[in-house]
Amino acid sequence: MQFSQEDFEKAKEQVNLLQDEPSDDIKLKLYGLYKQATVGPCNIPKPSILDFINKAKWDAWNSLGSMTQDSARQSYIELVLSLVPAEPSPVSEIPPGSKSIYETLEVTSKDNITKIVLNRPKKKNAINVKMYNEIMQALEEAANDDSVLTVLTGNGDYYCSGNDLNNFAQVSPAGLEESAKNSGAMLKKFVEHFIDFPKPLIAVVNGPAVGISVTLLGLFDIVYASDRATFFTPFSNLGQSPEGCSSYTFPKIMGVTKATEMLLFNKKLTAAEACSQGLVTEVFPDSTFQKEVWARLKAYVNLPKKTLAVSKQLMRNVEKEKLYEVNSQECECLIERWLSEECMNAVMSFMQKKSKL
Amino acid sequence: MQFSQEDFEKAKEQVNLLQDEPSDDIKLKLYGLYKQATVGPCNIPKPSILDFINKAKWDAWNSLGSMTQDSARQSYIELVLSLVPAEPSPVSEIPPGSKSIYETLEVTSKDNITKIVLNRPKKKNAINVKMYNEIMQALEEAANDDSVLTVLTGNGDYYCSGNDLNNFAQVSPAGLEESAKNSGAMLKKFVEHFIDFPKPLIAVVNGPAVGISVTLLGLFDIVYASDRATFFTPFSNLGQSPEGCSSYTFPKIMGVTKATEMLLFNKKLTAAEACSQGLVTEVFPDSTFQKEVWARLKAYVNLPKKTLAVSKQLMRNVEKEKLYEVNSQECECLIERWLSEECMNAVMSFMQKKSKL
Amino acid sequence: MQFSQEDFEKAKEQVNLLQDEPSDDIKLKLYGLYKQATVGPCNIPKPSILDFINKAKWDAWNSLGSMTQDSARQSYIELVLSLVPAEPSPVSEIPPGSKSIYETLEVTSKDNITKIVLNRPKKKNAINVKMYNEIMQALEEAANDDSVLTVLTGNGDYYCSGNDLNNFAQVSPAGLEESAKNSGAMLKKFVEHFIDFPKPLIAVVNGPAVGISVTLLGLFDIVYASDRATFFTPFSNLGQSPEGCSSYTFPKIMGVTKATEMLLFNKKLTAAEACSQGLVTEVFPDSTFQKEVWARLKAYVNLPKKTLAVSKQLMRNVEKEKLYEVNSQECECLIERWLSEECMNAVMSFMQKKSKL
Repeated sequence: MQFSQEDFEKAKEQVNLLQDEPSDDIKLKLYGLYKQATVGPCNIPKPSILDFINKAKWDAWNSLGSMTQDSARQSYIELVLSLVPAEPSPVSEIPPGSKSIYETLEVTSKDNITKIVLNRPKKKNAINVKMYNEIMQALEEAANDDSVLTVLTGNGDYYCSGNDLNNFAQVSPAGLEESAKNSGAMLKKFVEHFIDFPKPLIAVVNGPAVGISVTLLGLFDIVYASDRATFFTPFSNLGQSPEGCSSYTFPKIMGVTKATEMLLFNKKLTAAEACSQGLVTEVFPDSTFQKEVWARLKAYVNLPKKTLAVSKQLMRNVEKEKLYEVNSQECECLIERWLSEECMNAVMSFMQKKSKL
Repeated sequence: MQFSQEDFEKAKEQVNLLQDEPSDDIKLKLYGLYKQATVGPCNIPKPSILDFINKAKWDAWNSLGSMTQDSARQSYIELVLSLVPAEPSPVSEIPPGSKSIYETLEVTSKDNITKIVLNRPKKKNAINVKMYNEIMQALEEAANDDSVLTVLTGNGDYYCSGNDLNNFAQVSPAGLEESAKNSGAMLKKFVEHFIDFPKPLIAVVNGPAVGISVTLLGLFDIVYASDRATFFTPFSNLGQSPEGCSSYTFPKIMGVTKATEMLLFNKKLTAAEACSQGLVTEVFPDSTFQKEVWARLKAYVNLPKKTLAVSKQLMRNVEKEKLYEVNSQECECLIERWLSEECMNAVMSFMQKKSKL
Repeated sequence: MQFSQEDFEKAKEQVNLLQDEPSDDIKLKLYGLYKQATVGPCNIPKPSILDFINKAKWDAWNSLGSMTQDSARQSYIELVLSLVPAEPSPVSEIPPGSKSIYETLEVTSKDNITKIVLNRPKKKNAINVKMYNEIMQALEEAANDDSVLTVLTGNGDYYCSGNDLNNFAQVSPAGLEESAKNSGAMLKKFVEHFIDFPKPLIAVVNGPAVGISVTLLGLFDIVYASDRATFFTPFSNLGQSPEGCSSYTFPKIMGVTKATEMLLFNKKLTAAEACSQGLVTEVFPDSTFQKEVWARLKAYVNLPKKTLAVSKQLMRNVEKEKLYEVNSQECECLIERWLSEECMNAVMSFMQKKSKL
């Protein structure tokens, strides 16, 4: 089938309307084809290896060699059409009891429980910049509402796949340092929302948890996990250092030798291992997970609300200054890591591997 | 059988001579019958819900409705007679090696071990004000005597059922705030005796442990438990916050998510669970518990006395300032709790449930 | 066989050339026989019990009673001959990749791993003064070389049998206090080398570990153990208090009641117990121990080097001041212990028991 220039323009517009954000490799392919279609063969100098996003884009374009503009246009349109869903998906209803309208979360509050659901299931609930900000907002609202308990959980198969690496992609090479500082500041503020949260905070870990969604568990009061859950913090693989106060909470919870295995050497824990090491309160069979956990939480909310909050604060206040200090140092350290060659190379190599799959 | 006024007067006197203090519900029944017998049907206004002791007494009297004074007198005498033991119990001998005469404890010192036995078995060794004071005195004596080790254990089926809730009953509603402050000050001083204790302190947990007898275990050096022992801290149920430095020691020992389950959400641990979470050193079958534990303790006292004391202090001094601070904050927090409506309602409802059994 | 005075002189020289230092009881026997052979029956006053080395020497001499000088000379020569090895042992080759020449260690660096092997297998790798100094030197070199990981392990059946008690024997009774202070200062500096070590430090515990080689494990990042390994800290037996920061790290890792059992009451842990209490990262069957551990370590060195170092430092820096303070207090405490009668008697009695075997 032969497409017209008009089809090409239409495809261009459809890209911006896609309901699900395409994966990185698709985005790079789209970029390459678009440039090839509109400019012709790659005619710009190869960017520095440190400028990894532009380098990846350059690679995508340059790999098309001498493909004609016309055939690039055709491929572009075909690729876009393959991404457009056959049927428009139904407008999702706002569940009863919903609070603010969130884009990346579903937040409800009823029966004295405020439930914050990470809601990017097709991205395995990876946390992008939008979600970082929305979680902070949801925690602020939950802190001040009438609920007794606040629950964080994930929609779909994953609990959370950690920091969305696309957050790195939005960085212009010129502003790399500026951008690292901003990310560090946002991360610091994000973690402080967990340190400061004044009510019992409960993680309902419905599936695999990765990165910052694991390290933050040290700041939760109760962690219930499905036996399908795993706990994985591959920071070193990506040239990064631990955050979420885990450099302090993990050695405290499981001893330094077990914590090092996770935080430096990428050991992935099963739910049972995480429980026996004190990171998880209790593990439930996946088949009855939701039923058992929610029955328990509903029983908990009959306990005196203020007593629970005061007791939780008593347990946390004793180390609050330490937690602020640790969070600060971890963020400083990460800013340095993000600007290091080790980290850039590791993220680059990770993205390339991913796009080859 | 018909009783005379003389029998009634005699019964009144016998109540004060009872060897075993009657339970709360019996006391309330005695109160109601006595008032009904001497005054007639309840003729005073219902006390405020906050004035919970007088409210309970009022309920007991008022529940007798229009019972005649004579039949109240009869019931009163019958109830008293049912409480008087058939035979006078033999005068208990003071065991050899006894130190000061204690009312609620049995304290002996021999073979280099000072043994403090909680000795209110019919009250499941609940700690009343008298016992708080006597434990402090016994610890002071043990700190300064020649013994190498000091052991705390319970007489009867229980290790200790925690704070005697009758301590609340002695509070006049007028002096509620004053009384809460005094209780807080006493508790602070009591826990300091454990923080400061200069020799190895060993808990021999012979049966169920509840409340403050559990939280204090974080300040012991060795905890041996019978497999009949359980560990239960239902503070939230009673609108109260944790004490005994447990808001600090428990998260340190077992991680915050397991500590929260116990201290906020009333999870009762078996001896095996308490051991695997580090609260208990070792568990023994109940049938050989005493034999095995005492054989071990007798072996320990052959070790150099000063070395043991110095090593114990070395392990504690590193966190002593922190423990003082935590104890102080916990007591402040409890004073506030005791004066809160949540706590008053919870204690009230607990006592009512108990008296209905 | 009859020996000449010449044989006796030759034997005297051979003693100083022995490749393996004789055990304490042999040394005492040699001393006694030499004095008996050259001076005759013991003719000096019995030293004070506090002067324990001279007392042991006096005992050895005095125990020979009226043995003739000639027969003492014969026995001396026979004893020396029994100690001289039949064949001269081959000159040990310096392994490829060796760094400085060490007497008590074998240190190699290749494939990004610096490996420090405790190398006094006939002394079960007991740490004498020479080895303390060499380990400090090796750690300084490893901190500054190009390696990613540093590994400590033992040659032979033992990982390390702890402090060599012969270190005590070199103390002249006159300079006891001076000597205790010097030992305390050396120990403090030694432990600081572990606190300050800037890269991941890994213990490969190939067999039984005793004393300071166990307590230091709390300052390692990863501890892999053979299932043949045991963990034993019999400080109280010797009238001594814990070091290596264990009075802080052990309660943090395993809770105070398990730590007290080890550090005060001489509980020896199996590898499995040490793992379940968080002191050990993972246990391997002895038959495949070296293979599995080194395969894992070789995989680890592919991770970004600077990231690993920075993450390790992040985890340690948060408690570095505390560790310095604890180390200082432990050394102060030990200096006092070493000068105490309890310790002198305990070491004396230990050496006597050993020499009776």
